[in-house]
Amino acid sequence: MNSTGYYLDQMRATAPLVHNITNYVAMNIMANVLLAAGASPAMVHAREEVGEFAELAQALSINIGTIDPAWYDAMVIAAGVMAKAGRPWVLDPVGVGATTYRKTVCAKLLTMRPAVIRGNASEVLALAGLQAGGRGPDATDTVEGAETAARDLAQSTGAVVAVSGPVDFVTDGHVSYRVGNGDPMMPRITALGCSLNGVIAAFTVGQPVLPATVAALAYYGLAGEQAGAQTSGPGSFAAAFLDRLYHVTPDDLTKAAKVTPA
Amino acid sequence: MNSTGYYLDQMRATAPLVHNITNYVAMNIMANVLLAAGASPAMVHAREEVGEFAELAQALSINIGTIDPAWYDAMVIAAGVMAKAGRPWVLDPVGVGATTYRKTVCAKLLTMRPAVIRGNASEVLALAGLQAGGRGPDATDTVEGAETAARDLAQSTGAVVAVSGPVDFVTDGHVSYRVGNGDPMMPRITALGCSLNGVIAAFTVGQPVLPATVAALAYYGLAGEQAGAQTSGPGSFAAAFLDRLYHVTPDDLTKAAKVTPA
Amino acid sequence: MNSTGYYLDQMRATAPLVHNITNYVAMNIMANVLLAAGASPAMVHAREEVGEFAELAQALSINIGTIDPAWYDAMVIAAGVMAKAGRPWVLDPVGVGATTYRKTVCAKLLTMRPAVIRGNASEVLALAGLQAGGRGPDATDTVEGAETAARDLAQSTGAVVAVSGPVDFVTDGHVSYRVGNGDPMMPRITALGCSLNGVIAAFTVGQPVLPATVAALAYYGLAGEQAGAQTSGPGSFAAAFLDRLYHVTPDDLTKAAKVTPA
Repeated sequence: MNSTGYYLDQMRATAPLVHNITNYVAMNIMANVLLAAGASPAMVHAREEVGEFAELAQALSINIGTIDPAWYDAMVIAAGVMAKAGRPWVLDPVGVGATTYRKTVCAKLLTMRPAVIRGNASEVLALAGLQAGGRGPDATDTVEGAETAARDLAQSTGAVVAVSGPVDFVTDGHVSYRVGNGDPMMPRITALGCSLNGVIAAFTVGQPVLPATVAALAYYGLAGEQAGAQTSGPGSFAAAFLDRLYHVTPDDLTKAAKVTPA
Repeated sequence: MNSTGYYLDQMRATAPLVHNITNYVAMNIMANVLLAAGASPAMVHAREEVGEFAELAQALSINIGTIDPAWYDAMVIAAGVMAKAGRPWVLDPVGVGATTYRKTVCAKLLTMRPAVIRGNASEVLALAGLQAGGRGPDATDTVEGAETAARDLAQSTGAVVAVSGPVDFVTDGHVSYRVGNGDPMMPRITALGCSLNGVIAAFTVGQPVLPATVAALAYYGLAGEQAGAQTSGPGSFAAAFLDRLYHVTPDDLTKAAKVTPA
Repeated sequence: MNSTGYYLDQMRATAPLVHNITNYVAMNIMANVLLAAGASPAMVHAREEVGEFAELAQALSINIGTIDPAWYDAMVIAAGVMAKAGRPWVLDPVGVGATTYRKTVCAKLLTMRPAVIRGNASEVLALAGLQAGGRGPDATDTVEGAETAARDLAQSTGAVVAVSGPVDFVTDGHVSYRVGNGDPMMPRITALGCSLNGVIAAFTVGQPVLPATVAALAYYGLAGEQAGAQTSGPGSFAAAFLDRLYHVTPDDLTKAAKVTPA
C-alpha cells in the first residue's frame, strides 16, 4: 500500500460528498468530524428524496443506532443506489446483537454489498452469526476474539471488515492489518465510533478499500492520541479531537501511523 | 442516608445500562453526560424493538421534549417493561403545561409508576394539576411555590419528585431534602436538565430512590459549580462540565454536597 | 436604521420564545446558540401540538435540512399560525437545489409569507428558479452571483432575503446591505448557518425586519471573528463561539459591525 498519509491527502483533495443515514445521537458530531477532516457531509433520509440524493453522493454511510422502519426503507434505497453505481457504502451495525429487529435489518443490509463494515467485537461477532455478549453499543468481547469472525464476514460479504478496539483489526478476508492508534478516552465520547464510519466512507472514494480503511483508522486514532495528550476529560477531549482532525497532516499521519500486518 | 459519595461510588461500580427515550435536542449531550458520569447509555425507540431492548436495561429515562405519537407508543411499551420488572424509570415532563397533547401524554405516563419525576417548578405544578405559568422548558414559577404540589404529586404517584431550580427540592411525599449545588450558567446550556434525568436513572439502579436522587442532584450540581469556576461562557462551560462529571470523586461529593432536610 | 447594537439590546430585553422546526443535525447547537444569545428556544414538531405551541411563540424558524412528510406538515401548520397572527417566521431552504422534494416543499413554504429567507448563494439561486450549482448545504455559487436573484426573490415573496457568504448580502428587494463580519472557520462547524436563522428570528420580534436581520448577521459574524481570534480549530472554535455570543455587548456590536449599503 501507499503511505497512510497518501490516502488522507487524496481524501482531502477530493473533499467527497458523504451521504449519511445515521442515528440521532451521532448526527451533529458526525457532521463536525467530517467537516474537520475535510469532507462534505449531508444527512438525508426521507423516502421522498433519499434515492435522488444518493445519486449525488460519492459515498454513503449507514448506521442503525436509532433505526426504525422508515429509516430502514431509506437505508435500503440509498444502499441500492450506491451498489448499483459501484460507489462505496459503509455499514455500522450498532448494537446488532441486542434485538431481533436489528438482526433482521442487518441481515438484509449485508446482502447489499457494503464496501466496509466497521463495528466493535460484539457487533462483528453478532453479524457473523456467532455467540456474542453485546448489550448495546459497548463491546464486551475482545478484538482478538472476533478476528476469525471478521475474516469469515469479509469473505462471505465481499466487504472489508474493521473491528474497533484498543488495537483495531482490519481485513478483506485474506490480507489483514492491525492499527494501534487511539486513546482510552475515545469510548467516553458518544458517537465517535459512528462518526468514524463517515470518515472511512470519505477515504474510500476513488481509493482501494482495504488500505483506505486502514489509513482512516490510523488518522482517526492519531487525532485521538493528540487530543488525549492535551486534555484530561471527555468534554475538552471532544473539542480538541475536532481540532486535531483538522490539523493532522499527511506527513504527520505517515510518521505516526501504527499499522502492522496481521 | 449514606454519604452522598456512597451513591456515586455504587453507581460507577454498577455502570448501569440506561435506556433513554428522549428528545432530539438532548440525545447527544445526554449520552455524553452518562458516559462521563460512568454509566452506559443507549437510545432506542422503535416500536419494533423498544420492549425487547428495555428488558436488557437496568433503568429507563423518558423525556417528552420532542414527543410525537410513535415515540409516545415507545414510551408506554418501555415504561411497562420496567414497571413490570420492578426496575426504575424516570420521567422528565418537558413543557407539560404548554399543550394539551403533553398533558394527555403525561397523564398516561403518571399511571405507569415512575420511580422519579424531575422537572422545573412550572412542570411540577402543571403535573399536579395546579395553575402553572410555564411557556416551554423554562420555569417561570419558583421552586418554593411548587413544594406543596411536589409533595402531593409524590403521594399520588408513589414517585420521588424533584423540582429543579437554584436550590432543588426533592421529596417522596413524606421526607424531603433541599440540594443547593449548582451554577447559574447551567440553564444556559440546552438539555442539561434532560441529561440529569439519565443520571438520576443511573443512580437509582439497586439503590433506594430518595437518597439516590438527592445524591445525583448534588453530584450534578457540584460538577456544575466546578465547571463554572473554571469558565466564563456557555460553550467552554459545557466542555468543562463533562470533564468535571468525569473527575468528581465520591469523596469530593461527600465533602461538597449541599444537602439539607426540608 | 438604529445602531446595530440597539437591535441586540432589544432582542435580549425581549428574550423571545423562538419556536424552531429544524433538522436533527442542528437542534442541539441551535438551542445552545439561542440560549447563549439571550433568547428562549423550543423545538416542537408533532402535528398533535405544533399549532397550539406556535400560538405561544413570538417567532418561528423553519429549516428543511432533514425534511420528511410529517415535518413538512408541521411546518405548514406552524407557518400558518405565524402568518395569520402577523408574527415573523424565517425560512432556511437547506439544499433546496438538491432534490425535487425540497423544491416542492419550498415552493409551498414561499407562499406562506416568511419574514426572512436566509440561505447560501446556491440555495437562493435555486429558490429564485435560476440555475444553481448546489449539491447540498455547501454553496458553490458566489454571493455576488446571487444578488439579483435575492432581490427578485424578496420582491416576489415580500420577505427580506439574506445570502450568506464571506460577505453577506441582505435585501428587501429595494434597500440592500452588505455585512462583512465573520470568520473562515464558521463553515467548518456544522449547522452554524441553521442556527443563525433562529437568531434572526429572535431579532425580528417587535423590530423592523430588514435592520434586525442585518444586525443579527453582524452580531453572529462578530462572535465568529472573536472566536476565531482565540482558537485554531473547529472544536475549540465552537465552544468559544458560544462564549462570544454570550459576551458580545450592544456597544461591542455597534463599534465592530461591518455593515455597508449595497
